[in-house]
Amino acid sequence: MTTVEANVSGPLTPEQQAEIDALRAESRATLRATVPELESILFEALPVLDHGFIRVVDYMGDDAAVLQAARVSYGRGTKRARDDQGLINYLMRNWHTSPFEMCEIKLHVKLPIFVARQWVRHRMANLNEYSARYSILDNEFYLPDREQLRAQSTENRQGRGDLVGDDEAARVLEVLREDALRAYAHYDELLNEGSDGQPVDANRQGLARELARMNLSLNFYTQWYWKVDLHNLMHFLRLRADAHAQYEIRAYADVLSEQVLKRWVPMTSAALENYRLGAVQLSARGLEVVRRMLAGEQVEREGSGISPAEWRELMATLGRE
Amino acid sequence: MTTVEANVSGPLTPEQQAEIDALRAESRATLRATVPELESILFEALPVLDHGFIRVVDYMGDDAAVLQAARVSYGRGTKRARDDQGLINYLMRNWHTSPFEMCEIKLHVKLPIFVARQWVRHRMANLNEYSARYSILDNEFYLPDREQLRAQSTENRQGRGDLVGDDEAARVLEVLREDALRAYAHYDELLNEGSDGQPVDANRQGLARELARMNLSLNFYTQWYWKVDLHNLMHFLRLRADAHAQYEIRAYADVLSEQVLKRWVPMTSAALENYRLGAVQLSARGLEVVRRMLAGEQVEREGSGISPAEWRELMATLGRE
Amino acid sequence: MTTVEANVSGPLTPEQQAEIDALRAESRATLRATVPELESILFEALPVLDHGFIRVVDYMGDDAAVLQAARVSYGRGTKRARDDQGLINYLMRNWHTSPFEMCEIKLHVKLPIFVARQWVRHRMANLNEYSARYSILDNEFYLPDREQLRAQSTENRQGRGDLVGDDEAARVLEVLREDALRAYAHYDELLNEGSDGQPVDANRQGLARELARMNLSLNFYTQWYWKVDLHNLMHFLRLRADAHAQYEIRAYADVLSEQVLKRWVPMTSAALENYRLGAVQLSARGLEVVRRMLAGEQVEREGSGISPAEWRELMATLGRE
Amino acid sequence: MTTVEANVSGPLTPEQQAEIDALRAESRATLRATVPELESILFEALPVLDHGFIRVVDYMGDDAAVLQAARVSYGRGTKRARDDQGLINYLMRNWHTSPFEMCEIKLHVKLPIFVARQWVRHRMANLNEYSARYSILDNEFYLPDREQLRAQSTENRQGRGDLVGDDEAARVLEVLREDALRAYAHYDELLNEGSDGQPVDANRQGLARELARMNLSLNFYTQWYWKVDLHNLMHFLRLRADAHAQYEIRAYADVLSEQVLKRWVPMTSAALENYRLGAVQLSARGLEVVRRMLAGEQVEREGSGISPAEWRELMATLGRE
Repeated sequence: MTTVEANVSGPLTPEQQAEIDALRAESRATLRATVPELESILFEALPVLDHGFIRVVDYMGDDAAVLQAARVSYGRGTKRARDDQGLINYLMRNWHTSPFEMCEIKLHVKLPIFVARQWVRHRMANLNEYSARYSILDNEFYLPDREQLRAQSTENRQGRGDLVGDDEAARVLEVLREDALRAYAHYDELLNEGSDGQPVDANRQGLARELARMNLSLNFYTQWYWKVDLHNLMHFLRLRADAHAQYEIRAYADVLSEQVLKRWVPMTSAALENYRLGAVQLSARGLEVVRRMLAGEQVEREGSGISPAEWRELMATLGRE
Repeated sequence: MTTVEANVSGPLTPEQQAEIDALRAESRATLRATVPELESILFEALPVLDHGFIRVVDYMGDDAAVLQAARVSYGRGTKRARDDQGLINYLMRNWHTSPFEMCEIKLHVKLPIFVARQWVRHRMANLNEYSARYSILDNEFYLPDREQLRAQSTENRQGRGDLVGDDEAARVLEVLREDALRAYAHYDELLNEGSDGQPVDANRQGLARELARMNLSLNFYTQWYWKVDLHNLMHFLRLRADAHAQYEIRAYADVLSEQVLKRWVPMTSAALENYRLGAVQLSARGLEVVRRMLAGEQVEREGSGISPAEWRELMATLGRE
Repeated sequence: MTTVEANVSGPLTPEQQAEIDALRAESRATLRATVPELESILFEALPVLDHGFIRVVDYMGDDAAVLQAARVSYGRGTKRARDDQGLINYLMRNWHTSPFEMCEIKLHVKLPIFVARQWVRHRMANLNEYSARYSILDNEFYLPDREQLRAQSTENRQGRGDLVGDDEAARVLEVLREDALRAYAHYDELLNEGSDGQPVDANRQGLARELARMNLSLNFYTQWYWKVDLHNLMHFLRLRADAHAQYEIRAYADVLSEQVLKRWVPMTSAALENYRLGAVQLSARGLEVVRRMLAGEQVEREGSGISPAEWRELMATLGRE
Repeated sequence: MTTVEANVSGPLTPEQQAEIDALRAESRATLRATVPELESILFEALPVLDHGFIRVVDYMGDDAAVLQAARVSYGRGTKRARDDQGLINYLMRNWHTSPFEMCEIKLHVKLPIFVARQWVRHRMANLNEYSARYSILDNEFYLPDREQLRAQSTENRQGRGDLVGDDEAARVLEVLREDALRAYAHYDELLNEGSDGQPVDANRQGLARELARMNLSLNFYTQWYWKVDLHNLMHFLRLRADAHAQYEIRAYADVLSEQVLKRWVPMTSAALENYRLGAVQLSARGLEVVRRMLAGEQVEREGSGISPAEWRELMATLGRE
């Protein structure tokens, strides 16, 4: 039997780090566009959560590829009229999305299964996941930080509210750790396969991998290659870097936004901040309220056609709480 | 040779109208959700432009199907908290798009080829187009109304500006009509196929249809079946019912919005108006300006980080021109 | 605390069955195409595995809608030349897929999470899943039949081989059952929420649902609405009704194929059997071998350019083992 | 007025060739995978038809990236068991498509509008087309080679049959050329815009570009950037390099297949030839016939359940005509 170790390893094994070092040692010549800032972290594991990571393993295009595509569409006119950042802002502001589809990035991601289940809802991407039908999963599972152990939010039906107390937190972590360790020990027992590939117990055949895995819990880590174009990556960030997203997937979105996107396409990243991540939408009725307020009117919710919850949100947005 | 007639027919032939009448005469029993308001126009041709139409030929689901899907996702909590319109508003406001994907509609559309070329860019839909490889196109082409004969806009590089003068308009229509009639006459000649399917000129073989069609111009009408879910239909409307869309595709979007969507899913349609079609987006910088204005500050563009064009647009949006 | 019961319920609660009965009691009039055979099972739960089901909740179109779409594309020619089954066969044989996209079906499916993880890889569909961020999952988990407790296949790296022995089987089921029951009991404890919505232990806040769920294992049941067009449904069946698919997802594919597709679109279903599910592909080299054999030649693998594994498969296909 | 020249230019202007030469002069360092064979033609225009071209402008990944993705999915087992070509063959043969999605290519394509209309039906790709709303199209149109001037096929309702006679061919080319030249001259007149951007006729405003373009015929050339993953590119080739595809789009597919794919991913290209392009599908009934023939039986169509047309096709496939 492989020794069932506790959940203590870092994101990478020494073998994996050696492989990365080897990949980073060998430079090649290309006529394609390159992004030195992104090359500087290529193949490296950017840590996320307790055992997860994001690795950029390939990319195609840069900010200039977005501009080039826009200029194919709009012809020479655009070349004169705007500078590069201005054109990217224009595209983002007016939802001209197809030029952003001309860039592509490929990531190697290690993530808990319950995060993977949210992530995969983004269908406009390519995916190759480590298969637990063919292979054996490692004994690695996610345990939240103390700071993340929170009660159900009372304000909305989703999300987290207040921190739980210390005793409750200790019990949560004890349950999660012990159940995960037991689940893995049983998974390992059912498989009955030693590190040499031979049965541990010669009297048992061992259960098929595709069956044994069902005993693992949703906080076990899986990994995949995920390839996506820049437009769909930004859509992912808009939804998953948002305060309403579950903390654990937001942790991945934040690394993508801060450590990957800014290096890869700095002009597009700046436009994303201004026109998407930091932007707000005013409904037709919300806009009417703002216009009346700007005209000096004292506006009440009554008669505005806006619900109480939405009104609170609007006032918060406008800094009028 | 089939007599090459001018471009004078209405959207439907008498045979087509008889087929529609027959379809509308026969009612069946179903356990599925039905929408009587939409059934009242089912199969009918809603006219668009000079020879085009939109026909609703099938549909699946209604506003209640959107609610049902949302309640599968969010569980019982949603049932208590909100009324139906309130929940649909919530979904639309927070970009919870998947419940809207649970409704589907199938349309028969007749449209000029240059409109079809824009329409088909909406990839998340199903399409069966009349094939000019297999069949012979009719002699029907689009001629703009006098009101639509406009010069290139001087404000942006796309779109139309002022009306052209009467002489110029007359010349435009003369050119478009004569070139289209000649193109079709030549198409017909190259095909060399009479209405009886026999060669008109027994000394010629006639050119393959897939080749002859290349002589037709982009204002000839084609037709297709187009099937799309409600989410993607609304995305189409957001882009194509917009003032920046070309007038001719906007004409189709307007019929879909006013005559189809309102009948089919009135609650969703109301939410679309308020949260998408009539809504505006404020960038992070734009929001900062609004907050400062609401706080009583006199705000100048200088130092706001907003470009002159975007500033003009922002002030117009806020009713501050 | 809700009493944590064992995994013994049937697929539906009495309340759910009453809701279905109510839905089935009310018939409406429609001008749309209907399929009485499919209406006869509409809303009913078709059982799959130990606690799962498939329910057809809506549909659009029928075999005639496929034909109608084909005839829009190919024009009048098709009407004369072929009968209905013949045209559907022609479309299927020649991979003319878009007419099949004109039909749509909506299913309510209850399935184990590890099956859901395979299912969701079919991206060309619409999905609303029960959210364990908003709601509390039931205490239902999948336990394989004795017949399914098999060892890893020795022939390929995936899939199941021989049955495990009785003692080993008993141990597998004991582990799976006990770990699932314990996982759910701990989930329930962490949530600390009684059936009245009040804390069970007034001294604890209870952990947020989105966190507590991570303690559940992959054999717990989830449920979703899944909407897909007929072309993509058949693609799903081609991959998932296949002998290489994991047994548990194949159980769902088989119900879809036998109990849903045959009722809904019998002509398309027959063509699927003949041209996809029961069909084989011969590679260029495999075809060369068949031609030589038919010409009376004694063909050996040496020199055929075909690998040993592929040769065995080819001979088995040709009935020459 | 710009001088309206006949349709005589080559695929590239001297300015475009100079731009390509500049792009090819500058090499950069990268840690990413590179494909020297593909780099050797990067940015170059590969001619297609009379004025069209395909240019590879960027790429991501190579055969090794396919293998790497497969090995992520299937784990270490695959590494031992098969060599590289063997694993790629295995993936292709068993329709394991997602590893092929891990490679991406970006092309600049110049093509007649009627070809573009077929091409765009491949939805799983990204597209930026030259916009005739913003810019003015060049006076370039497609005229078929003498060898392509064929009559409608008598065997099926699509495609081309016999060559037309010399007189008829001369007339076809005369019509196509004269109508295209006239259409462009009128387009140019309606635009009323000289090469200096000023009105040619100061008394006219000129018609908006988005309107004037409708006078152009379907053989005029457009251009676009098209980005697609390797799996979807192969699907495109399977449908468009096929004998049933229209000659003009097949010309593009052939260049992609022969000049691009073989350089980029030689192992995948070989597998595509054997398992897709040169492969055949036997229906369940067709397979039954083959098995009986191989068992020495004299098989007749009667009673086989196979239609006459399909039987002829089957016998031709088997080399038994």
